[in-house]
Amino acid sequence: MNIYDISKKAGVSIATVSRVMNGNASVSEKTRQKILAIIAETDYTPNVFARGLGLNTMKTIGLLCADSSDQFFSRAVYYLERALRASHYDAILSCTGMELETRAEYLKRLLAKKVDAVILVGSSFIEPVASHNQYILDAAAEVPVIILNGYLKAPNVYCALCDDGDIVSQVTSVYLDHGKRDLLLLYRSDSYSGRCKLAGFKNAFAKRGLPLDPRRTVLFNGTIAQARDKLLAVAEQGLFFDTVIAGDDELAIGALKYAKARHLAVPEQFSIMGYNNSQLGVCCEPELSTIDNQLSFCCSNAVAALMSVLNGKPAPAKTMLSANVIQRGTTTLFDTVRESGGL
Amino acid sequence: MNIYDISKKAGVSIATVSRVMNGNASVSEKTRQKILAIIAETDYTPNVFARGLGLNTMKTIGLLCADSSDQFFSRAVYYLERALRASHYDAILSCTGMELETRAEYLKRLLAKKVDAVILVGSSFIEPVASHNQYILDAAAEVPVIILNGYLKAPNVYCALCDDGDIVSQVTSVYLDHGKRDLLLLYRSDSYSGRCKLAGFKNAFAKRGLPLDPRRTVLFNGTIAQARDKLLAVAEQGLFFDTVIAGDDELAIGALKYAKARHLAVPEQFSIMGYNNSQLGVCCEPELSTIDNQLSFCCSNAVAALMSVLNGKPAPAKTMLSANVIQRGTTTLFDTVRESGGL
Repeated sequence: MNIYDISKKAGVSIATVSRVMNGNASVSEKTRQKILAIIAETDYTPNVFARGLGLNTMKTIGLLCADSSDQFFSRAVYYLERALRASHYDAILSCTGMELETRAEYLKRLLAKKVDAVILVGSSFIEPVASHNQYILDAAAEVPVIILNGYLKAPNVYCALCDDGDIVSQVTSVYLDHGKRDLLLLYRSDSYSGRCKLAGFKNAFAKRGLPLDPRRTVLFNGTIAQARDKLLAVAEQGLFFDTVIAGDDELAIGALKYAKARHLAVPEQFSIMGYNNSQLGVCCEPELSTIDNQLSFCCSNAVAALMSVLNGKPAPAKTMLSANVIQRGTTTLFDTVRESGGL
Repeated sequence: MNIYDISKKAGVSIATVSRVMNGNASVSEKTRQKILAIIAETDYTPNVFARGLGLNTMKTIGLLCADSSDQFFSRAVYYLERALRASHYDAILSCTGMELETRAEYLKRLLAKKVDAVILVGSSFIEPVASHNQYILDAAAEVPVIILNGYLKAPNVYCALCDDGDIVSQVTSVYLDHGKRDLLLLYRSDSYSGRCKLAGFKNAFAKRGLPLDPRRTVLFNGTIAQARDKLLAVAEQGLFFDTVIAGDDELAIGALKYAKARHLAVPEQFSIMGYNNSQLGVCCEPELSTIDNQLSFCCSNAVAALMSVLNGKPAPAKTMLSANVIQRGTTTLFDTVRESGGL
């Protein structure tokens, strides 16, 4: 039962129901009593109450992320929460893990809480099989859905992301154009972002008419130590590589530990490019060169688009930002951009 | 205006107001209409509505932390959110920054949202000056307040924390009992936890009747690179030290970078103990020895105590857990405990 049902049952307009709930005196006493009686009889719950009236929303946005303790997600959640608060919205946090079923269930739970919108933090929410994204479309039928670092073309879905494919293609191209051929892409997940990185890597080879051994793209989800062991196993199987482009800084540090285990000098004999510009990258020695995917800009764009939509104004369905390379100690070939500092 | 005010204004009992709102037929039509009219006239908001009736709480807990992108806080928020969700509660996240005024204001905002309880994540919420903690006592007058990693003795306040003072005293004692004298405590904040660490450090010296140069306790809040520079400055000023006990892993990595800048072999010439057992500690070389302050146990204890209180049952006002030392590459003197893995 919501405000529409009440207006129907009372035989009055929605505006009249709203006026009664507001204590507006312009409604006749008879109509007022009738509406109040209907409300009292129903299971009209407080949240529906608030939202249905449109005058007292919960001012709450649902934030879904796989794992808020992850280096990337935790920064995203922080930036988003701050930006939402500046716009006078609260953030309900929901950590879903990686299972599609759990994600869909938690998203439904947030909608039942009558949040004003949801933000999906991270491209892992977008499934490779299109039909598996129905849960996002279902949510978007109820409230605006913002996707951070992923892209899904659908009504009422707004995406803010970094051009992961382009930067990986650029970085790969720099290596190839310097005559390097023994590259390895080590990426974590078959997410939207992961697929873009893979496409960018392949694209750089293809544009130059260079063959790409499929063993040079390694999909691997594990800890730093496990990433090191994975690379040791890959080398053990006879594949030579002297360059790792990593899908995140954890994997890049795994590659650094691999180089150490193999007594390879970094960056002289072995080159490593990280991803995400996380705090991990300034802990190791040499410090990581890494791709800065503009997380704080992505987050502020996401919230700006959301606020526009919530205020009934248009917003771009997709905001795509270009990434920067931050060259530190694990590479030599790249132009340095100014670091934002503070790590 | 809440359910009490309504009952007063209508001249009926709270139970009667509750029955009307429930659509319970056992109330006379005249009384029902009277109550509904009062509700319609007031600014009785939906959340108050829900909570006042006690039958449909928001099932929402406010999580306040200074900075959810911090290594320690982000893991705490993750563990807490998961534990709360398992108990069918949602978490509203609020990142307050470090200013007392902002913290107090955000806490008030959460209470206005009618959360069922608040969890203060991190000991930075507890001010050294007792009167500055009035904002916590005020909150505890309304809802249960849980403090993670800090302690405040007050009604309706429940604390889950690690015995920071004891473990720092133990670690310091191990160094002292091995004849090391040139220790330095590098800690980040004058928080409850920071004060415990300082007391533990001093205590180990005092128990042995050893003098402690006040320059050997350094309070410093900055980045990894700034911590390195701070230690370089301390050494420059003529203080010799060959051991750093750090208040967190960031500071410990700063100490590792200091050792590298000074060409000191770690752990042979220079020993470093980190704190928090964060992912940072397995990124550096050598990997950090670090104090594991049992964060996941603290979080599950905090939520267990909260659920007990919310269910009207007693809970310990203080749950104190002992910490472990995880010895990796930056120290030699400690017994190793088994690592929980997964970093």
